[in-house]
Amino acid sequence: MFGLGAKVNPAVCGRCRLVASDLLCDAFGQQKGPLKMAEKLALVGIGKIARDQHIPSIADTPALVLAATASRNPAATVDGVPAYPSLAALLEAAPEITAVSLATPPQARFADAALALAAGKHVMLEKPPGATLSEVHALEGLAAKAGVTLFATWHSREAAAVDAAREWLSDKCLISFHISWKEDVRHWHPGQDWIWEAGGLGVFDPGINALSVMTAILPAPVHLVSADLHFPANRDTPVSARLRFGGPAEVTAEFDWLEKGPPAWNIDIETREGKARLSQGGARFAPEGGEETAGANTEYRRLYTQFAKLIEEGASEVDLAPLRHVADAFMLGRRVQTDPFEW
Amino acid sequence: MFGLGAKVNPAVCGRCRLVASDLLCDAFGQQKGPLKMAEKLALVGIGKIARDQHIPSIADTPALVLAATASRNPAATVDGVPAYPSLAALLEAAPEITAVSLATPPQARFADAALALAAGKHVMLEKPPGATLSEVHALEGLAAKAGVTLFATWHSREAAAVDAAREWLSDKCLISFHISWKEDVRHWHPGQDWIWEAGGLGVFDPGINALSVMTAILPAPVHLVSADLHFPANRDTPVSARLRFGGPAEVTAEFDWLEKGPPAWNIDIETREGKARLSQGGARFAPEGGEETAGANTEYRRLYTQFAKLIEEGASEVDLAPLRHVADAFMLGRRVQTDPFEW
Repeated sequence: MFGLGAKVNPAVCGRCRLVASDLLCDAFGQQKGPLKMAEKLALVGIGKIARDQHIPSIADTPALVLAATASRNPAATVDGVPAYPSLAALLEAAPEITAVSLATPPQARFADAALALAAGKHVMLEKPPGATLSEVHALEGLAAKAGVTLFATWHSREAAAVDAAREWLSDKCLISFHISWKEDVRHWHPGQDWIWEAGGLGVFDPGINALSVMTAILPAPVHLVSADLHFPANRDTPVSARLRFGGPAEVTAEFDWLEKGPPAWNIDIETREGKARLSQGGARFAPEGGEETAGANTEYRRLYTQFAKLIEEGASEVDLAPLRHVADAFMLGRRVQTDPFEW
Repeated sequence: MFGLGAKVNPAVCGRCRLVASDLLCDAFGQQKGPLKMAEKLALVGIGKIARDQHIPSIADTPALVLAATASRNPAATVDGVPAYPSLAALLEAAPEITAVSLATPPQARFADAALALAAGKHVMLEKPPGATLSEVHALEGLAAKAGVTLFATWHSREAAAVDAAREWLSDKCLISFHISWKEDVRHWHPGQDWIWEAGGLGVFDPGINALSVMTAILPAPVHLVSADLHFPANRDTPVSARLRFGGPAEVTAEFDWLEKGPPAWNIDIETREGKARLSQGGARFAPEGGEETAGANTEYRRLYTQFAKLIEEGASEVDLAPLRHVADAFMLGRRVQTDPFEW
C-alpha cells in the first residue's frame, strides 16, 4: 500500500490503493488527488443510457477519468472530451486509454469488445453483455489471454435494497417468488428500433434486469420449465412474456412492455417465515412487519467503482446466469403472435 | 492397480482397473472375468434410440452391465432385465444400481437426472443434455455436491472420422466451413411429437449433432451473428434453419428436416492449405488429394466406454457449447412462419 507499511490496515482501507482514502488523509494529512493515476476510460455508445447514467457516474468515480468517447452519431459528444466516429479510430488516436466501457446495443457489442481486449484494454459491458452467450464466452477467453479485466455488468443488482433482500432470503424457506416487471416501452425506449430487431431481446431487455436480481438473491439456482413469448406480428422480439421456473418453490415471472402509466418493477416473495416485497426495480425492500430498506439510485456509480476495483485486483467478473435464462426462454418458450407494434 | 505394484505400468494399461486387460493376462496368466465389479447401470427411456444404440452398446461395454430399465410405456422392456414404470420406482426397488443413463426426451431429463444424482448415482445424459442450459448448470452443481460423475454426451463427436478432421484442421488456416445437415424427419423421427413441442428443439435436434462436431473440430470458438428459423404454422419448433457465425472465417450452417431420400450430413471445409469434406455425419473424412478416413459407427460404444472411464476417474464431462449455440440461435434468430407440418 504505497510503502506505508503497518500504519495502514488494508482490511479497513479498501480503497486506498485507488484513491486517497479518508484513512490516509487522517493519518498523513491532506492528500492532493488520487495517489494512483486514474484509469483513462473511453465510453463507446453515447445514447440515452450513457447520458442518463454512465457519464455522471464516471464523473463521480475518482479512480476513472472519461478521456474519450466514440459514437457513430457525429452529434453524440461530451463537452470537453475528444470524440471519435468508432472505437477503432479512438484506439488509434488515443493509445493512452487503459479501459473501455461499452454502452452500445448488444448486437454491436462483440466486435468492439474483442478489439479493445486485443489492444490490451480493460472492458466493461452494459447489460446484456452480448447478443449471444457464445460470444461472451469467447470474450472471457480473450480477456484471460490478454491478462486484462472483463466486467459484464448487471446494473439492477446494484439497486439500493437488493443486498437486503438477499440477506433476508438467505435463511428462509421459500414458498413462492413472483416477478412482475411491467413498463411502457414508448416511455423507456422511445424510438429505439434495435430492441425490436433480432438479438435486441424485446421485453427481455428490461426483463433481464429482474432475472439479474432473481439470480443474485435466490439461495439456490432455478431453471425454466415453460414460457410463453408474445411476438408482435411485425417485430422480431417479444413484447410480453410469462415464465415458470422449476424447483421446490413456485418461481414465476411476468414481463409486459405495454403497461401504461408508472412502471411496476416488483418481486413478491413468500416464505414459511413471512412475506416481503422488493419493489421499484430493487430500490425498496419491505418485509411484512419488518424494517424497510430503501435508497437512492447509485447503480452505475457502484458498477464503475467495482470496475476500478476489478482492474486493480487483476480480476474479471462475468456471470452469465441472467442471459442464460433469457436464452432458455427463447429456446424453450412457446411463441404466440400478437397485434403489430408501432411506436 | 490391485497391489500388482511395479509390474504393471498404468501408462500402458489404461483399462486394467476396470477389466482384466491384455497386459494383465499376459503377465499373470488367464484372468476369469473383470477384476473389478462392473457398474450396475439403469437405462431410462426405452425408445428408438435406446433399442438402436444404447442397449447393444451397453452389452458391448465390459465395465457396465444393464441391470434395470425404466419406461412410462409398460411394453417397453428388455428381455431378462427388470423393468420399472419410473426411475423413482427403479431406485427404490434396486438400490444396488450405481449408474443411470437417460435416453428420455430432453424435456423430461432434469427431474430424473436430479433424482439419480441425489441418490448418489453416476449419470449419463443423451444429447441434448437438457431442455435448458440453466438446468444442466444446476445438474453440474448437484453432481459435484454428490461426488459422482455427470457425463453430457454428444454421440456425433464419436463418429469414426471426427478425430481425423480435428487433427487435419489443427494446423490449417480456415477460409470457410459450411455445415449442411439435411434429413427426412418422417424417416428419422417417425411420429415423435415431442420434437415439435416447445423445448424439443425441432430441426436443431439433428442440427445440434453438427454443432457438436463443429465445436469439437474448429481450432477457435465462433459465435452466431445471424439466424433464420422456419417454424411450421402449427408447430412450436423450427423445421429448418440457416445460421451464420462470426469470426475470421466464413462459418455457416443449413439445417433442413424436409429432405427427401438419403440424409445429407456434411461439412465442407476450405483452408488456405486445401479443401476437405467431413461426410456421413462424421463417419468419413476426405481431404482433397489426401488420405481418406472412414469407419463403422461405434459412437455409443465409445460413449459408454468413456462413461465408465469417467466414473473410474471420479471425473465429470459437461461441455455445453453445442446447446449454447442452439439457445443463441433461438434468442438471436429471426422467426419465419412456413407451411403447417403433418406427419
